[in-house]
Amino acid sequence: MKIVRYEKNGREFYGFLEGPSIVRAEGDLAQGLARTAHKDALAEVRLLAPCVPTKGVCIGLNYRDHAMELGLALPTAPVVFLKPSTSLIGPGDWIDYPELSHRVDYEAELVAVIGRKAKNVPTEQALEYVLGYTCGNDVTARDLQPKDGQWTVAKSFDTFMALGPWIETELDPSDLKIRAILNGTQKQSSTTANLIFDVPHLVSWLSRIMTLLPGDVIMTGTPSGIGPMQKGDEIAIEIEGIGTLSNKVR
Amino acid sequence: MKIVRYEKNGREFYGFLEGPSIVRAEGDLAQGLARTAHKDALAEVRLLAPCVPTKGVCIGLNYRDHAMELGLALPTAPVVFLKPSTSLIGPGDWIDYPELSHRVDYEAELVAVIGRKAKNVPTEQALEYVLGYTCGNDVTARDLQPKDGQWTVAKSFDTFMALGPWIETELDPSDLKIRAILNGTQKQSSTTANLIFDVPHLVSWLSRIMTLLPGDVIMTGTPSGIGPMQKGDEIAIEIEGIGTLSNKVR
Repeated sequence: MKIVRYEKNGREFYGFLEGPSIVRAEGDLAQGLARTAHKDALAEVRLLAPCVPTKGVCIGLNYRDHAMELGLALPTAPVVFLKPSTSLIGPGDWIDYPELSHRVDYEAELVAVIGRKAKNVPTEQALEYVLGYTCGNDVTARDLQPKDGQWTVAKSFDTFMALGPWIETELDPSDLKIRAILNGTQKQSSTTANLIFDVPHLVSWLSRIMTLLPGDVIMTGTPSGIGPMQKGDEIAIEIEGIGTLSNKVR
Repeated sequence: MKIVRYEKNGREFYGFLEGPSIVRAEGDLAQGLARTAHKDALAEVRLLAPCVPTKGVCIGLNYRDHAMELGLALPTAPVVFLKPSTSLIGPGDWIDYPELSHRVDYEAELVAVIGRKAKNVPTEQALEYVLGYTCGNDVTARDLQPKDGQWTVAKSFDTFMALGPWIETELDPSDLKIRAILNGTQKQSSTTANLIFDVPHLVSWLSRIMTLLPGDVIMTGTPSGIGPMQKGDEIAIEIEGIGTLSNKVR
């Protein structure tokens, strides 16, 4: 099942994508979504970020290859940082190049979307709290990311949490091809099998620290191949079994 | 003017504290608050955190004395980290000692509450975007706070963002006595005149990174004298011109 959030005639809806049609839904991710009789054509709506997280919980250095390219030791526990809700954008939205930065990078990431309030969840039950998966771009002002300091400034600019195009609910996250494609050229290519800490581990571990709410996202980290974007560039994040999230930089 | 948020008979309200009475308000911090004819007695309500931030934006090492006690160099730009909305508690609420930690510290902080959406705000106009000030306890699992890594885990546990008791809107934040009192014994004592980056600078700087929304808070950092709390302890954060925020640990 593919859950979308979309705008039509100035109003926002959730829905279920079925081929070229969207079955409009009532409710939200906290209450649950119910099908209605109303359908919209995908071609006639604007897709939005498929959820509205209260927080983006992000994992750093979670692919062996990426930790090596940054010259950093492999973490023994997940490296965690947050993106604020104000950094959220959806498919097709602009990534705004901040005045404060001179190096803005893409980071392709598998994103787990929380479906049920999660607190102290055991690893074995963790996937029951995941609604599904979407593509994410953990946009990063690399020149503002100190190796030995807080990453919040580098990661929290408005438009720096790109999510979409939808939430795929029927997916095994353990071995999915993940790629970043900049202006048509492949820049990152890996598989989620290379994750140091996998999705069940992350959901369980994080839920021992902070309550995860429906719609919250876990951005699971990026593989090697990170690099800069320029104004005018188009960046696509493609994950096997989900789809492609595309954004342009301005 | 003192803005409170409170619970009575299972319902939540904003209001204006006037002596022993609360004038109930309509609206919220985004729409604006309007007085109603209804009054509640302060003694008959439970005060809540005076705002519901979408994010707690926190500043590290912002008092010269605190940076020195941690053996860290003075920052040349604000050190920024985030607390998630799920860490929020109000006056009188419990601070829950996490199973994952063996050292949980208080940190007394002056907290600026945002009143208007702020984006790229000049320093000279920054205070126009501040609704007022409250007391904050930036509770920290010190043993989970690496000197050279991300502080998010240490700072983000549920119940680790204590705010209250109210928002004082008529206050000059530039030289206020601030204290932490543990079980009746003073542990921190300083003045906000010792802030390295003051409130106008922080609002302006942060608004160049992320949009600040009404109700969002900036926790401006803690002075020297940080130390651990044990289960059963009572911690009070007292700021001149505002009042006292008290919480117990369990």
